[in-house]
Formats: sequence, structure tokens, C-alpha cells
Amino acid sequence: MALRFRRREARHLWDIEHSRNALEPSHTHHISRQYNAELEEIRSRVLQMGGLVEQQIEQALAALVKADTALGEAVIMGDAKVNEFDVAIDDACQHIIARRQPAASDLRLVMAVIKTITDLERIGDEAEKIARMAVRLANEERPKNNYAELQTLGNHVRAMVHDALDAFARMDPQDALATAREDRRIDQQYESVIRQMITFMMEDPRTISRALDVIWAARALERIGDHARNICEYIIYLVKGKDVRHTSLEQIEKEILGRRT
Amino acid sequence: MALRFRRREARHLWDIEHSRNALEPSHTHHISRQYNAELEEIRSRVLQMGGLVEQQIEQALAALVKADTALGEAVIMGDAKVNEFDVAIDDACQHIIARRQPAASDLRLVMAVIKTITDLERIGDEAEKIARMAVRLANEERPKNNYAELQTLGNHVRAMVHDALDAFARMDPQDALATAREDRRIDQQYESVIRQMITFMMEDPRTISRALDVIWAARALERIGDHARNICEYIIYLVKGKDVRHTSLEQIEKEILGRRT
Repeated sequence: MALRFRRREARHLWDIEHSRNALEPSHTHHISRQYNAELEEIRSRVLQMGGLVEQQIEQALAALVKADTALGEAVIMGDAKVNEFDVAIDDACQHIIARRQPAASDLRLVMAVIKTITDLERIGDEAEKIARMAVRLANEERPKNNYAELQTLGNHVRAMVHDALDAFARMDPQDALATAREDRRIDQQYESVIRQMITFMMEDPRTISRALDVIWAARALERIGDHARNICEYIIYLVKGKDVRHTSLEQIEKEILGRRT
Repeated sequence: MALRFRRREARHLWDIEHSRNALEPSHTHHISRQYNAELEEIRSRVLQMGGLVEQQIEQALAALVKADTALGEAVIMGDAKVNEFDVAIDDACQHIIARRQPAASDLRLVMAVIKTITDLERIGDEAEKIARMAVRLANEERPKNNYAELQTLGNHVRAMVHDALDAFARMDPQDALATAREDRRIDQQYESVIRQMITFMMEDPRTISRALDVIWAARALERIGDHARNICEYIIYLVKGKDVRHTSLEQIEKEILGRRT
């Protein structure tokens, strides 16, 4: 996790143009450099927060699968750190709006960051829910497959969050679009888990309580996929200047490709 | 609904001071009046959006209880209008940030609005989910109690959304706090519905499918309560200038009361 994250930070592909850089006197240029540094700092903190959230998902699932109470407790405690990031980055964004009066692409960046951290914070909440479940179930009998369906769904969801953060790091709307598309496959996988659990419950009502636990965890993972999709949509909006939240993916793709040609 | 909403608009208690109004030359004063009108317009549109969202919840529940397919379809169609509000108000907020460079309480207002509409939009999504379920279940056998537990929970949740919007209209942090507290009672009511459904499923596995539908609808309602609580927290933040999202309600109450005395 830490390794992956360092790689992501090292990319330095933050290439949205700051138009005020062109042909300015040196004093303004100095302010402008400070301002760019502030924007870069915010962006870097979003990626740090994202790395932490990815880790929370990973460890919450590990705690469930390994019945590791200590790890589950660590994830629950860790959510406070996610929340700290949320408040600190939100403050930094408001500070920039008040002092720097960003316009155009800078303003879009700040708005995208404000929305992204809200989704990251809620991904953190879902991870915490899974961790709480892991702690509660640690001393109970395990299902025979040791939550295999949750492991599969969880790995898929974690990869989607990872890809969304990569797309954010590179500000790549194509990658963001491809990642947003994954949400559908996650929804299908989730539906299939639910159907499987309903079958189990019908066949043997003694499994109802355990099946419902699987359903809650699957639902938390499916929600995480929704939040990752939201983040992808903010990236497309940020780069393309187009609000895509209530547009179908086909429509977005058409427009992105349409503008390219 | 329409009546209630008009009453709310008529209150005119938008009394956050705009400090730039004091002792300014007439040209600036003119700009300042326009600016205030823009802020007022945004606030009024949030209340309109809120009124629509309240109506969506109400009608989605009515569609479920009365097995009214047409009403359910109307709610599903109506979600596009909620989304339009979301995009339009978001645009207006960004426009104000870019052109008016708001500071202090004005900036807090704009930020609170941006966050509030995200929660209202997601409340709309949950109402749409309930409406889709209503359409799907309209021609199936009704449970004997005709979803009495969902009606009770739904009325409670709808009242909470209504109170959150009232607190927003009056910018009253005390009311916002009292409303945020309701979320706990809703969570308890939700937990009791889930326990009841588990009991039904265990007693008679033939009810599993129907009980799960009730569980999904209850879960959507519980989520709406979470969003209403978020809105209350933005109001406290807006008026008190304090981020309360990751603070316990006891702590918030202490601080609000502490600052008063």
C-alpha cells in the first residue's frame, strides 16, 4: 500500500495549466508560485487521504476474513484519521477560495477536491462498518467458505478505489471513465451475492443471521463502489469542465471522444 | 407540501450579517445589493429543491403503501428534476465564488449550500429506490400489515427532513441540533424493523423475499435520516463557523450552549 502510494505521488503529472502564469511581473509570479504550491499541497493531501482509505478497506476485509479483532479495532480507530484529513483539506480549500479567489480550472480543482474528500470520508465510514462487523463476528463460527464472496467483491471494489485515485493523480478523464464503468460490474457482482444469500436463507433458515451479515458487508462494499464512481465523475468534470453526475456513461464517452476529434 | 413550503419561504429570517454593507459608497452598495439578491436566490432554490425532495419521499412511500404504480413512476421520473436543481444550484454557487469572491459567513453559506444539495440529491436517490420497489411490488401480494413499520419509520424520517429544511430556512443552530438528535431515534426504529424482519424470516422462510424488501426500504429511509443529519450539521457550521461533522452531538451542544452564556 505504502509503496503503491509513493509511486502515485512520484508521477508529477499535474498538468492543468494555470493561465495566470503567463507573462506576469516577478512579484505576481512569486505569489503565483506560492499559490501553485498550495494547490499542489492540497492535491497531495487528497492522495494521502486516498491511500489511507484504501488501507482501511483492505484491513477491514482482512480483519473479517482472518477473524482478527485487533486489526478490526485498528481500522475503527483509524477512521478518526480519515476524518482529520477531511476537515483539514476542507479548511485548506476554503482558505484558498477566500485568499486566492481561484477562477476557471483552479476553481474546478478546488470544487472537485471538496467533493472528492466527502466521498473518501464516506468510503472510510463504510470500511469502519465492515471492521465493526469483523470484531463482532470474530468469536462466532465462520461460514465454510470464509466469506469468499466478500473477498472477491472486496478485491474488486478496492481495485476500483485504487484506479479512481490513480486517475485523480494523473487527472486522466479516459481512465476515470473506464474506472467509472467498473461500478456496473461491481453492482452485478453485488446482486449475485445477494441472490446467493437469499438461496442459502431459504434452504436453511438457521443461516439467516449469518447471511444477513454477509449482505450488510456486501452492501457496504457496493456503496464504496458508488463513491469511487463519484470521484471518477469529479475528475471528468475537473478536466473537461462538464458536470457528468447525472449523465449516462455512454453519453459521457460520446462527449469526451467527440471533443477529442 | 406546496403550502408548507410557501410558509417556509415567507419567513425571511435570513439574518446573517453581510459586513460589507456597512458604510459603503453607493456604487459598491448597488453591487452589494445584487450580491445579496444572488445569495438569497440560491438559498430560495435550496428550499425549493428541499420541498421537492420531501414530496418525493412522501409519494414514494404512498406508492408503496397504496400499490400505486403510476405514482411510483411519477417519483422515478421526478428524480431528474431533483438532479436539475443539484446541477443548477452547484453552478450558481461556483459562479458566485468566481465573481463575488465571498469571504467569511458568505463563503460558509456557499460551502454549506454546495454540501446540502449533495445530500438532498442523495435523499432523492433513496426516494427513487423506494419508488422502484413500489412499482415492482405493486402487483404482488401485500403483507398483512401493509408495510405499517415502513409507514411509521417513513413518517418519522420525512418529519426529520422537513425539520432540517426548516432549520436551514431559519438558520437556527438550536433547531438543527435538535433535529440532528432525531437521527438516533430513527436508527433505533430502523434496528427494531430489522430485528422484526429477521424474526419473521426465521419463523417462516417463505416470507424471506418479502422481508428483505422491507429491509431494503427501511435501509433507504435510515440513509435519508443520515443525510438530514448531515444537513443539520452544515447549518451549525454555517452559523457557528465550527465544523461539527466529526463531533458527537453532546460535544456540539456543550459548545453551542457554552458560547451562548
